Amino acid sequence: MARDERIHGTTAAGFEAVREEFGAIAAGQGGDYAAQVAVYRHGSRVVDLWTGPGLDASSLLGAYSASKGATHLVVASLVQEGVLDYEQKVSHYWPEFAVAGKGELTLRELTAHRAGLVGADDGFSLEELADDRVVAERLGSQRPYWRPGAAFGYHALVMGALSGEVVRRATGRSVQELFAERVTKAYDVDFYLGLPADLEERFCPTLPMVETPERLAELARTTQGPNSLNGIASNRNNPHGPQVWELPNHPVVRELGTASFGGVASARGLAKMYAAAISTVDGVAPLLNAGTVEALGQIQSIGHDVVLGIQRAFTLGFHAVAEYYPQLGQGAFGHSGAGGQQAFADPRNGIAYGYTRRRMPFPATPGPENDRLLAVIYKAAAGG
Amino acid sequence: MARDERIHGTTAAGFEAVREEFGAIAAGQGGDYAAQVAVYRHGSRVVDLWTGPGLDASSLLGAYSASKGATHLVVASLVQEGVLDYEQKVSHYWPEFAVAGKGELTLRELTAHRAGLVGADDGFSLEELADDRVVAERLGSQRPYWRPGAAFGYHALVMGALSGEVVRRATGRSVQELFAERVTKAYDVDFYLGLPADLEERFCPTLPMVETPERLAELARTTQGPNSLNGIASNRNNPHGPQVWELPNHPVVRELGTASFGGVASARGLAKMYAAAISTVDGVAPLLNAGTVEALGQIQSIGHDVVLGIQRAFTLGFHAVAEYYPQLGQGAFGHSGAGGQQAFADPRNGIAYGYTRRRMPFPATPGPENDRLLAVIYKAAAGG
Amino acid sequence: MARDERIHGTTAAGFEAVREEFGAIAAGQGGDYAAQVAVYRHGSRVVDLWTGPGLDASSLLGAYSASKGATHLVVASLVQEGVLDYEQKVSHYWPEFAVAGKGELTLRELTAHRAGLVGADDGFSLEELADDRVVAERLGSQRPYWRPGAAFGYHALVMGALSGEVVRRATGRSVQELFAERVTKAYDVDFYLGLPADLEERFCPTLPMVETPERLAELARTTQGPNSLNGIASNRNNPHGPQVWELPNHPVVRELGTASFGGVASARGLAKMYAAAISTVDGVAPLLNAGTVEALGQIQSIGHDVVLGIQRAFTLGFHAVAEYYPQLGQGAFGHSGAGGQQAFADPRNGIAYGYTRRRMPFPATPGPENDRLLAVIYKAAAGG
Repeated sequence: MARDERIHGTTAAGFEAVREEFGAIAAGQGGDYAAQVAVYRHGSRVVDLWTGPGLDASSLLGAYSASKGATHLVVASLVQEGVLDYEQKVSHYWPEFAVAGKGELTLRELTAHRAGLVGADDGFSLEELADDRVVAERLGSQRPYWRPGAAFGYHALVMGALSGEVVRRATGRSVQELFAERVTKAYDVDFYLGLPADLEERFCPTLPMVETPERLAELARTTQGPNSLNGIASNRNNPHGPQVWELPNHPVVRELGTASFGGVASARGLAKMYAAAISTVDGVAPLLNAGTVEALGQIQSIGHDVVLGIQRAFTLGFHAVAEYYPQLGQGAFGHSGAGGQQAFADPRNGIAYGYTRRRMPFPATPGPENDRLLAVIYKAAAGG
Repeated sequence: MARDERIHGTTAAGFEAVREEFGAIAAGQGGDYAAQVAVYRHGSRVVDLWTGPGLDASSLLGAYSASKGATHLVVASLVQEGVLDYEQKVSHYWPEFAVAGKGELTLRELTAHRAGLVGADDGFSLEELADDRVVAERLGSQRPYWRPGAAFGYHALVMGALSGEVVRRATGRSVQELFAERVTKAYDVDFYLGLPADLEERFCPTLPMVETPERLAELARTTQGPNSLNGIASNRNNPHGPQVWELPNHPVVRELGTASFGGVASARGLAKMYAAAISTVDGVAPLLNAGTVEALGQIQSIGHDVVLGIQRAFTLGFHAVAEYYPQLGQGAFGHSGAGGQQAFADPRNGIAYGYTRRRMPFPATPGPENDRLLAVIYKAAAGG
Repeated sequence: MARDERIHGTTAAGFEAVREEFGAIAAGQGGDYAAQVAVYRHGSRVVDLWTGPGLDASSLLGAYSASKGATHLVVASLVQEGVLDYEQKVSHYWPEFAVAGKGELTLRELTAHRAGLVGADDGFSLEELADDRVVAERLGSQRPYWRPGAAFGYHALVMGALSGEVVRRATGRSVQELFAERVTKAYDVDFYLGLPADLEERFCPTLPMVETPERLAELARTTQGPNSLNGIASNRNNPHGPQVWELPNHPVVRELGTASFGGVASARGLAKMYAAAISTVDGVAPLLNAGTVEALGQIQSIGHDVVLGIQRAFTLGFHAVAEYYPQLGQGAFGHSGAGGQQAFADPRNGIAYGYTRRRMPFPATPGPENDRLLAVIYKAAAGG
């Protein structure tokens, strides 16, 4: 079989089939499909591929909610050091938070999407939403939409601002600074919470979803009201707010590296971040110890997500990814992004994975191409 | 366009389109469709329409579970005064309640449909079910069907009897008396928990659902067993009990004004009640202050309702209505009725809404006509 | 109408229609359908029927998870005696359990499938899974897959090992021994947790599901990953583990009488066990008193089962069976089995029911034949 000219990059011995599958995916997606995929195994890169127009291995794409993985790795590292404690009340670190029935809420509950602070009563402008401190200040004074403890639901656009404020109060430093120091620089990871100006030239904007009558009809049919929990969590309750899909295309989002959605990364960066979390990478010891890794794999919230209306499983700021992919090991943790990103660490199999794409998928979730890639990757990891 | 002769009543300037939409609904429903709709904006009536045979603006219809809204406005007003406390144990007010594992249950949990007392082991006769004190005495001595705290589920026919008993124990007066005093009379509201004999002539009985083979087949397919939670909550576990749809047609229900379902109201009354809750109406200050209004908008129970088997969101005796209609503001609270009624307050938009219809809809939920009416009403309220 | 020659056994006066319905079921299932059904009413056997090749009234079949009913009757009898307490912490009886965040978990929560210990990180071999003590030791040292309290989910293959270990620690005896003494022998019940060697000749192995392309396609489509909660709970995370459907066919399972799935019983045995639980049978007083019976009927966990992904209702180790069959009385408790078994006590109607079949149904749940049989049985019990 001739090597697919559309697929660039390298695979380690035994992982050649990933290139073929990626080529088949590219052929199926057609036209302007552009994407990156990277895999680490026990700390070494074994897959490093990219395809499509306008994008190469060094391209940096909006990470969307995969940014929450970066933010909560910082939180986990601080817990590991004893600076933070998941069982501690949020208000211990952030006294102003202890109003409107939020005084008893713990960091564990907060990071497990149980706070009920999925947005603000009037929503946010782009500038407000991009700025974690503005979001945190507003939500910290607000009554939760549901009584804390009654439910959990995805804090889609604000989770990182809340966790980040706890980090800031406890350390005096932003989660962005700590991520840059502890991950981006320490492990030379191509993932930025706050993109340096000199790397802007590598940024590859997200292209809009291809609109078809069927897709628009489904969106019209399924989109909930702007003041439903789903609407508030999506900031649709602010008619002047930004569209979610465009967020990383706004310079202010990239510059501030909004902790919920403002990260910018390559697939290499996504995969290497998770590799560094669990493995020695390039001779540097892993960010997390075994106990922390185990803690990040335990499900904290599972069942009906009252914002998304579907079954979800969250750990301490992460998705319990093994619920979603059949090959993954128990205790895998990661975070997807609305732009089709998927990224996780699978400690039991020693695998770290990152995937990005240039054009918004429909629906705005990690696309089925991840299922196909992961099937081949895990088969290769198991020895073919 | 010619004015629709079937639609009676008035609309304020800017709300003319509501009349047109109501006419289109009436045309689509056909034959004997008869209904009322009323809207208040910032305490003034802006829509006051009715249509169909056997019904006019002063007609009073069974409110079904919209009665729960009346009952829980009284509860909220007592909490506001400090007579009741949502965080207090039910057994503090009602000592006999503290048996069979119910000693710790709070008024908050009770009104949030968390008690697990959705009915009685043998169900109720019509006379028993109509009498809140009989229902309360029986349920107060009973073991909950689910361990309190384990779940929430709609207490369809008994919620008001339970809350009402707390009111009676704390004040020495029935919730019906207090509603008459604080709402019906204080604001001149056409909503009666206990219909005075001299108003009986204005009562318009509910007509049965139009039976079709398809509807009967769907009912046969979906109706759960009489001793399932759903069956118990619907009193189907008593083979001699009344049919739910007929409840307000029984004089005993209207006379007693059963707190869960026995109210009788016009659409004017439904809307004016919620207007009075949040706004100055006819020069009278609102029933509730800002803090109470905010509390009634916070979701207490959300997710899978174990009686109804679908997602529901309850606040303190009310529905969190913004989950169900895309136009509504966050914090809207109200209660629908099985006869097709819908009624709520939307504090953020200053809107109060009431809708009644004469014939049972299928399914027995607020019909899609509410979606259509609300779309037009909110467009008008936003300036067209 | 001619008597169906395929149906063997007897029915009491008034229950003749059960024979006819069983015959109609057998005719519809075709070929090698073989099954038993037995019913007790107020402690007397009123239905005792069997059909099909390779099976007679004395045949003993794998009980699968109906075994959990046997195990939890023993637990209930010990609670009734004061030896165990549902509100006590598991770690009170079993100190080693108090690790990895499990110290506060109560026996109530454990038996209500709330512990989050649905399996082990590496799964189990057949020999391990068959041995309750091996399973208990491994799970007792393990971190729960979800934070205790966050959810409930079916502990399909390990529930009995966990409850059984509590029994063993509190009494010094195995749940199997106590079941043999308190139920099998005390009431002469054809249900064995640990099949005596001299009864092996009565054992009738389960036949595999009939495979069709449609069934295999549906299984392929719906089977979750081996490290999802569902996969772990089904032991699919151990590639060398046994298939669930084959469990009772393995001699080690029958010999040990694994408390979750290793029981062996006839329909007579299943029905008589539940009859003995609630009624005087053959002159022997019932195992449980009225308070215990009521406790076993109260729902402890209801809503979305995070392992099965569907609505389930559990009491203290049992299913709340009235949720599943329209005829049953409130407070009915029992347990089905993956091989198509169904068995329960319905205290309010004085009915105990048992059903077995030889061939695995598809899906692996109590088949629709139970719905049909129960409809006829309850009609007969109500006087036809």
